[in-house]
Amino acid sequence: MKNYVVKAKELREYVEKIFQAVGLKKEEAESVAELLVHADLRNVRSHGVLRTVPYVEKIKDGGASKVSTYPVVHETANTAVIDAQGGLGALAGEKAVKIAREKAKNNLISMVVVRNSNHFGMGGHWALKLAGDDMIGFACSNTDLTMGPPNCKEPFMGNNPFSFAFKAGEKYPEVCVDMATSGVAFGKCKDLAKRGKEIPSGWMLDKDGNDTSKLEDCFMMTPMAGHKGFGIAFVVELFATLLSGGVLSPDINNQDLTDTPELSSQCFACFNISAFRDLKEFQETAENYIDRLHELPMKEGAAKYPGEIEYTNKKINEKEGVVLPETLVDDLIGLGKEFNINGEFLKETVTDRQ
Amino acid sequence: MKNYVVKAKELREYVEKIFQAVGLKKEEAESVAELLVHADLRNVRSHGVLRTVPYVEKIKDGGASKVSTYPVVHETANTAVIDAQGGLGALAGEKAVKIAREKAKNNLISMVVVRNSNHFGMGGHWALKLAGDDMIGFACSNTDLTMGPPNCKEPFMGNNPFSFAFKAGEKYPEVCVDMATSGVAFGKCKDLAKRGKEIPSGWMLDKDGNDTSKLEDCFMMTPMAGHKGFGIAFVVELFATLLSGGVLSPDINNQDLTDTPELSSQCFACFNISAFRDLKEFQETAENYIDRLHELPMKEGAAKYPGEIEYTNKKINEKEGVVLPETLVDDLIGLGKEFNINGEFLKETVTDRQ
Repeated sequence: MKNYVVKAKELREYVEKIFQAVGLKKEEAESVAELLVHADLRNVRSHGVLRTVPYVEKIKDGGASKVSTYPVVHETANTAVIDAQGGLGALAGEKAVKIAREKAKNNLISMVVVRNSNHFGMGGHWALKLAGDDMIGFACSNTDLTMGPPNCKEPFMGNNPFSFAFKAGEKYPEVCVDMATSGVAFGKCKDLAKRGKEIPSGWMLDKDGNDTSKLEDCFMMTPMAGHKGFGIAFVVELFATLLSGGVLSPDINNQDLTDTPELSSQCFACFNISAFRDLKEFQETAENYIDRLHELPMKEGAAKYPGEIEYTNKKINEKEGVVLPETLVDDLIGLGKEFNINGEFLKETVTDRQ
Repeated sequence: MKNYVVKAKELREYVEKIFQAVGLKKEEAESVAELLVHADLRNVRSHGVLRTVPYVEKIKDGGASKVSTYPVVHETANTAVIDAQGGLGALAGEKAVKIAREKAKNNLISMVVVRNSNHFGMGGHWALKLAGDDMIGFACSNTDLTMGPPNCKEPFMGNNPFSFAFKAGEKYPEVCVDMATSGVAFGKCKDLAKRGKEIPSGWMLDKDGNDTSKLEDCFMMTPMAGHKGFGIAFVVELFATLLSGGVLSPDINNQDLTDTPELSSQCFACFNISAFRDLKEFQETAENYIDRLHELPMKEGAAKYPGEIEYTNKKINEKEGVVLPETLVDDLIGLGKEFNINGEFLKETVTDRQ
């Protein structure tokens, strides 16, 4: 299959036009496009522009509201609760970040929770925005049902992702811990199956809660590190859902339904570093800590700080352009045609990059 | 080996007398005894009164300061930085909890970080104290060197434990996520070796960073879930050490040195639930969520909320007494003798309980 390469800015503008065409305001469309293209820049492709088609379908069919005003339904000096009214996770996130950063400037630690939301994309996007240059950012979301506690035969929660981010000096501007609480992503299983390989033991469970190596029998994911991952997914439920008064994970909707909002919940927080110590000193120490990590003797490869691979990808892709497979480019061009938006430029440059 | 059973209150008083005898003030000795016996009540025995002897040795030899005043060296309306001055983690924790709870009453979210500290015992003790009836409590600590990033041949951090706790209504007063970020506790490996069994693959590494099944070759632990656990341990370092300006993990001292403080760092936080929603509603929803967890169909056993096993142990042990093995009782009695404190009562009641 051919791969194409396209400048991030052009891709963002194209996706933005599509979201405007489907009914979002200009600045709303910008936010969604920024979120998706940011994931592609970091090569987190599962959360990149391949989500454009499903997001658009969901807006068209009413599963993601075009008219939500994302009202703040409860507020204090350093906390807020937003009702996303079934709107887009990207737009709830944008509003939450703005409020959380603003509140943390004077009130040092802030937390904004969101209920009745939809898929919020790559968690690291939000943690990095919350962090800026001067804070620690935190974001998490519950997700639709895929996972249960160890030994369970029925899912009770999603693979609830969370992310922390901060700037560790000019050298390491984007340190970002970003993970789902499942052992592995389902995408990895699909990839193995496509290549005719078995799914390793311990990854996936069938309908009876037994380990399965076959894609067609996969019913549930296992939490990372067993009961520990379950505990962490539980903490995500606590901060996102229980604090926001959102719909409990076992009752939220499959994100693939186009006419029904997922009703997921999210949590966003800022920790203002200057509340604890001089920001410059903090950054120098953090930079030094990572320098030392880089010097560690390794069995193979080099020690990397959390988010280093993704940040390196971003630097390359910002310069060289984002790589998109032909099937995805065809989908994006097809989607553009529905709205009379010409996407043929996406096919201008073939690349050998993967 | 025989086991003895002793009432928690009597055990606490005995341990308290010992810590007073070694030079702590009455209320300080109470705090340390409460921390250790609480771990035994929850059957987290690795952090229970078996720590009495090493803690006392450390105080006697100067590795844990008797004279630290745990000064607050930086403070805002909802944050504080404490310098433990090489004192006890238990006493730094006690002060941090008091400040964090007080600040969170009016300022809703608070965070207190501690530097130059020592072992802070069972993380859940602190998270539960921070939580009380009305908040979410969070506590974490870096620990001495035992773990590195995946594929590393040298430790770079400890197995950095963290804990979150809250009350989910009268039915579930102590929900508590409490874990180290290593795959398994080293105690488990020692236990297997004692029973002549091999250490399973993936648990421990030798000096070359290779998997080992032999206790004598164990040099490092592996992070839980590989790079994910490393990322979480990194977050603990961020909140405990980097925010407090404490000594970086690769430079802190082995906790077993009796004449040198570990110089570990800790972080304590409170999230006031009423800042987000009505506390009673929150607790009803949380209780309902756990009721539903309990009803899940299981392959074996019953689904349990985080901390349920430990809370059940606590309820039993509060009534029936704490079980202590003979060797530990002998150590405690011997330690008492050094200070003319009679501990023979610890041997009054033999038990079949384990």
